[in-house]
Amino acid sequence: MFTTVLTEGPVSRVDVARRTGLSSAAVTKAARPFIEAGYLEELASEGRTTPGAGRPANPLAIRPDREYFVGVKITGDDLIGVVTDLRADVRASAHHALTSHDVEHVVGALADLVGELLTGDLRDRAYCLGVAVSGDVDRASGVVRYSPFLGWRDVPLASLLEDATGLTATLENDVKALAVAEQWFGEGVGASSFALVTVGTGIGSALVVNGDLVRGAHGVAGEIGHVPVADGGPACHCGGQGCVEAIASTEAILTLAREVSGEPALSMEDAVTRARGGDEPLREVFAGAGHAIGLGLAALVNLFGPERVVVSGEGVATYDLFEDQIRRTFAVQAFGSAARCGLVIRPLPFEEWARGAAAVAIQSLFVAESV
Amino acid sequence: MFTTVLTEGPVSRVDVARRTGLSSAAVTKAARPFIEAGYLEELASEGRTTPGAGRPANPLAIRPDREYFVGVKITGDDLIGVVTDLRADVRASAHHALTSHDVEHVVGALADLVGELLTGDLRDRAYCLGVAVSGDVDRASGVVRYSPFLGWRDVPLASLLEDATGLTATLENDVKALAVAEQWFGEGVGASSFALVTVGTGIGSALVVNGDLVRGAHGVAGEIGHVPVADGGPACHCGGQGCVEAIASTEAILTLAREVSGEPALSMEDAVTRARGGDEPLREVFAGAGHAIGLGLAALVNLFGPERVVVSGEGVATYDLFEDQIRRTFAVQAFGSAARCGLVIRPLPFEEWARGAAAVAIQSLFVAESV
Repeated sequence: MFTTVLTEGPVSRVDVARRTGLSSAAVTKAARPFIEAGYLEELASEGRTTPGAGRPANPLAIRPDREYFVGVKITGDDLIGVVTDLRADVRASAHHALTSHDVEHVVGALADLVGELLTGDLRDRAYCLGVAVSGDVDRASGVVRYSPFLGWRDVPLASLLEDATGLTATLENDVKALAVAEQWFGEGVGASSFALVTVGTGIGSALVVNGDLVRGAHGVAGEIGHVPVADGGPACHCGGQGCVEAIASTEAILTLAREVSGEPALSMEDAVTRARGGDEPLREVFAGAGHAIGLGLAALVNLFGPERVVVSGEGVATYDLFEDQIRRTFAVQAFGSAARCGLVIRPLPFEEWARGAAAVAIQSLFVAESV
Repeated sequence: MFTTVLTEGPVSRVDVARRTGLSSAAVTKAARPFIEAGYLEELASEGRTTPGAGRPANPLAIRPDREYFVGVKITGDDLIGVVTDLRADVRASAHHALTSHDVEHVVGALADLVGELLTGDLRDRAYCLGVAVSGDVDRASGVVRYSPFLGWRDVPLASLLEDATGLTATLENDVKALAVAEQWFGEGVGASSFALVTVGTGIGSALVVNGDLVRGAHGVAGEIGHVPVADGGPACHCGGQGCVEAIASTEAILTLAREVSGEPALSMEDAVTRARGGDEPLREVFAGAGHAIGLGLAALVNLFGPERVVVSGEGVATYDLFEDQIRRTFAVQAFGSAARCGLVIRPLPFEEWARGAAAVAIQSLFVAESV
């Protein structure tokens, strides 16, 4: 009930009842504690009465300022933090460079960042912290099982952060955190299935099927970067061949661009500039990466049939060089009506990752069993 | 409650309670109507008492002969029918050749087949018919939207069959029907996620995630045959290139075997015999198909992370020629712990398809909203 109002509101009790399958009376009963706790409010009646409902259809709405949430993304180089309201709208942001990957140092720096973010009014109404880390993260236990960028194994980060900040902490894999933000507050609202694909240093995805994130029976799912699309193609660090990531990651693109140009010191910036300026061989390198991404998307969509796919990530900052080819390849390889899947391709500001972490904190406050 | 006893029973009330999250009292209450209707029975106490339960742990068991179910698979060439009990054990089987794809003819032949199958005792306790058809089947409305093999579009087959047989009819896509049989009575029991892959004239799959069949927001899902695995590979009838089906379908294998042997009239039987006899070029044709299937499986498993995958189908009748390569390629391309996914490769007797249809009939009797 609450999540319907949170993600789709303001909305009348009758509409909530229709969407959740509850009775109107059950909605009223379920709403009461949220109204008493200040999370929900009843908007003034619009004077309409709903046939059969017997009372004015006062819409229920979220009070976004009732509580604030801190979200932090940990990368190999820095911490990016935001404070959001209940609807995941960003109210403040900040970042810290990381000078070491030592766990104690990172925990201390993160506590400092939280202190810096939570000033005045924000401090008094923030209780929950969401943290996003790439790699194998066990949300239920709050442990970073393995983070290649940080070189961490089995770090009980959530409890360390709770001690250091006094906030309730929830950890999530960074791509999954972004997917939660999309599911609750973005392109995924109202879609029972969708996928978020991130393109950059690594290529990953998070899949939502029947409203739930797919986590994989053996802890692995959404690895679109390791879908093999080019039999006999370049070797991948995972031990496979022709994986999407072996062709379309930032490093793979740069390696090929250097080979094609014959300039072993070519920088990514220069490769992008020259491709934009019309350098055909370099344009083809980017188009080849777009083609591999399009093949991976076709694999995903032909298997799952999501309603929508969002392609994002720092690699998509140069998406003018990819987008055409992604769409062309996807159109050719999507099977039948799977091609009707909406494809949204857009850059991803780094702050969005931190907002994803805040969305996880919001979710874990209201959904008991979201893992 | 009932499905737990059906798929995992005999099982004590305490175990049912633990597995379903219901209280023991709720299990007892839920079981009563099924016991009264004769679907369940209480087995004699084994004399043990369960600590805290305060009463002997009389296991609940299915009475498999309480009701019989008819399952029919429609192919382009014939109708294969079975009668099963409540646990999908086959009690009788029969088949009819189809001399025409005319809807009226097929409906008539199917009604004849049902009449032949339901004799004596079986007739009196059979009320439900499940029908499996390849192609785009809308289970909810009972309409075959599109069947390439039969050349049908928008045929309201369920209601035509209800009129012709007097049984309650449920239609399902054939691969999905097989997946239901696995989910309820086979390798999928107790697994919250698994995949069934069928290899033959076409290559398809059905995916179960969090206990539910993935149907695809746009009506397409599980199309592992159209996962592109070989960039620049052979053209596929779907319009794409390098799809698994373009490399590993029966037709694709035969085409390549004829090319490789230089014998344009080579039969599949001869190709198989000679490959088994050690003909290296022909052995490589089958291995190449196994490799493509292994790549498709890796794509599926890296994206979904199912607990188990069953690979089956008429193409797997010759699986001695595929299996090694499927497993080798899968092991190389599965990402990290996704490789722990159990891979079961086994032939599929044609009668199994009909049993899948019967499983759909059983499911639709007990699960109100299974679509």
